[in-house]
Amino acid sequence: MGGDFGPSVVIPAAALSLIRHPDTHYIIFGQESEIRAHVSEDSPLAEVSKIVHTDIAVSMDEKPSQALRHGRWKSSMWLAIEAVKKGEAQVAVSAGNTGALMAMAKFCLRTLPGIDRPAIAALWPTLTSESVVLDVGANVGADARSLVDCAGMGAALARALFSVEKPSVGLLNIGAEEVKGLDEIKAASAALKNASLPIDYRGFIEGDDLGKGVVDVVVTDGFSGNIALKTAEGTAKQIGTYLRAAMNRSLLARIGAVLAQGAFQALRAKMDTRKMNGGMFLGLNGLVIKSHGGADSVGFASAIDLGYDMAASGLVENIRRDVERFHDALQTKPARALKAAAQ
Amino acid sequence: MGGDFGPSVVIPAAALSLIRHPDTHYIIFGQESEIRAHVSEDSPLAEVSKIVHTDIAVSMDEKPSQALRHGRWKSSMWLAIEAVKKGEAQVAVSAGNTGALMAMAKFCLRTLPGIDRPAIAALWPTLTSESVVLDVGANVGADARSLVDCAGMGAALARALFSVEKPSVGLLNIGAEEVKGLDEIKAASAALKNASLPIDYRGFIEGDDLGKGVVDVVVTDGFSGNIALKTAEGTAKQIGTYLRAAMNRSLLARIGAVLAQGAFQALRAKMDTRKMNGGMFLGLNGLVIKSHGGADSVGFASAIDLGYDMAASGLVENIRRDVERFHDALQTKPARALKAAAQ
Repeated sequence: MGGDFGPSVVIPAAALSLIRHPDTHYIIFGQESEIRAHVSEDSPLAEVSKIVHTDIAVSMDEKPSQALRHGRWKSSMWLAIEAVKKGEAQVAVSAGNTGALMAMAKFCLRTLPGIDRPAIAALWPTLTSESVVLDVGANVGADARSLVDCAGMGAALARALFSVEKPSVGLLNIGAEEVKGLDEIKAASAALKNASLPIDYRGFIEGDDLGKGVVDVVVTDGFSGNIALKTAEGTAKQIGTYLRAAMNRSLLARIGAVLAQGAFQALRAKMDTRKMNGGMFLGLNGLVIKSHGGADSVGFASAIDLGYDMAASGLVENIRRDVERFHDALQTKPARALKAAAQ
Repeated sequence: MGGDFGPSVVIPAAALSLIRHPDTHYIIFGQESEIRAHVSEDSPLAEVSKIVHTDIAVSMDEKPSQALRHGRWKSSMWLAIEAVKKGEAQVAVSAGNTGALMAMAKFCLRTLPGIDRPAIAALWPTLTSESVVLDVGANVGADARSLVDCAGMGAALARALFSVEKPSVGLLNIGAEEVKGLDEIKAASAALKNASLPIDYRGFIEGDDLGKGVVDVVVTDGFSGNIALKTAEGTAKQIGTYLRAAMNRSLLARIGAVLAQGAFQALRAKMDTRKMNGGMFLGLNGLVIKSHGGADSVGFASAIDLGYDMAASGLVENIRRDVERFHDALQTKPARALKAAAQ
């Protein structure tokens, strides 16, 4: 029921993702009549879907605490997350209120052993392929331990999605030199450098390295990560506007644009942020994905696809194991570094 | 002597800016023989320039404290800043080590009354025109007072550069709702909202608003500001690479690109970050501008042009006056909000 468009986007998206993954089953929570209006009686989607009615939906502007009070146990958002907890679903996908979704996911699924704060990971398109960037909005002002946990969780995700054994990891900072940046980031860097971990730790990276794809996993706190993500989206849109204006400024340019139509289509496909849609909640006892509230059905379907891949790879179990290895490795050596940061 | 290229970029840049501003005079500090190699004997630049020799130059990788120890009183960087203090120059422009430049500028020029921490401001190209964004790297983790000071200094700069009487100001945050974001940002927002200031305070903005140009002045702490700036630069480069690849993928696209040549040139001019070069140090008793270390002469000349406009507008005096008005206005009302944040 969430997002700017509700079932009118979510249902066609499910149908779209089902074509790519015919072994998917859906449980669709929400206002039954509204949902049924978008599911054709004898469609392939109807065959694999169960609709569970509820009148209650979390609105987009509710505060997390409000949403928990009024939507716990009974809202469509809660029921979708609870289905993951009960093992009825392997992943919950929602376009609803991010804060409420995270609050309910934490309350219902609980964090994995040893994880204090779940994170939201995003896929970032790069010149070489894609990177995992986390956190992009769950935690404002992370401490060293949260950053180190993000490195572990992000590495597990990269292993699942990119099939790399030892993912490369970088910490987002404002200078490659050791002297700069926040104390927490320095402490996290020292910890990652000193421990023998199943990652290839590459040190600090800067904002302009994100698009180059210099590492598989970029670790940052939720405030800077969210600003970086939205700034990149905004810049891409801005340049798209410049490009369209430039291609319309003369007859010759318009003719050129027609001839280069195929090239522009390829560029548009390359820059299509809908394919990168889906904030992955990591660090919980179950998988939850947040689709952009303004996503269309192509975008929401990408979020479902992502959930499919995450579930198929056994990600929760892998993160649990990896984070344990991380904590074991970190207890031996860099506990000092982490302690120093806490003081 | 600073930056990746030293006098080979700085001297041609000075000659370039001199064409646009024939009433400029230069004092050029550094290795005299190296400088003379780039200044033709009877050029217009030679006529308006004085070369002051020094053997000592701050290197790009020195820590600020090291640079202060070894370069104070005698390095080219120090002498350029000191010329501003003595009133011999109205602005110092350097492509050198940012941390060292800020440390020396603070030590030599001192901050304006009431300003705790100077900031670095950048011009951000937007769909409508340009915005001032600050801080982009001087202060990691700003408190509410620093953010409010940035609003005042940024507004004074916008008044000088954009000729607006009541600049619009936004605070960079990760959500437009009041519930999100850091306590310091919330406290700064409350202070700016409640006081009667000579600005048009518009509340929170997000990363994707930067390129839209929704406000004249964007206020943020130096960590997020630097990451936003570099992420936007990196994204622009990334899309440029995609565009070039797309235009080379078929014969038809190449023909189209030739026909649309003029359009691509206009686009390139629009995206030319060299014109936006120059980090403006604000909050000091004098003007200092940091050029990108990798800037070419066109880029460095933009930084000089910026310095010319700032000096011509009497910016230091305006900031001094505006910040006083700011502090007066803030003392009456939102002192509580600021105090609440400090607790």
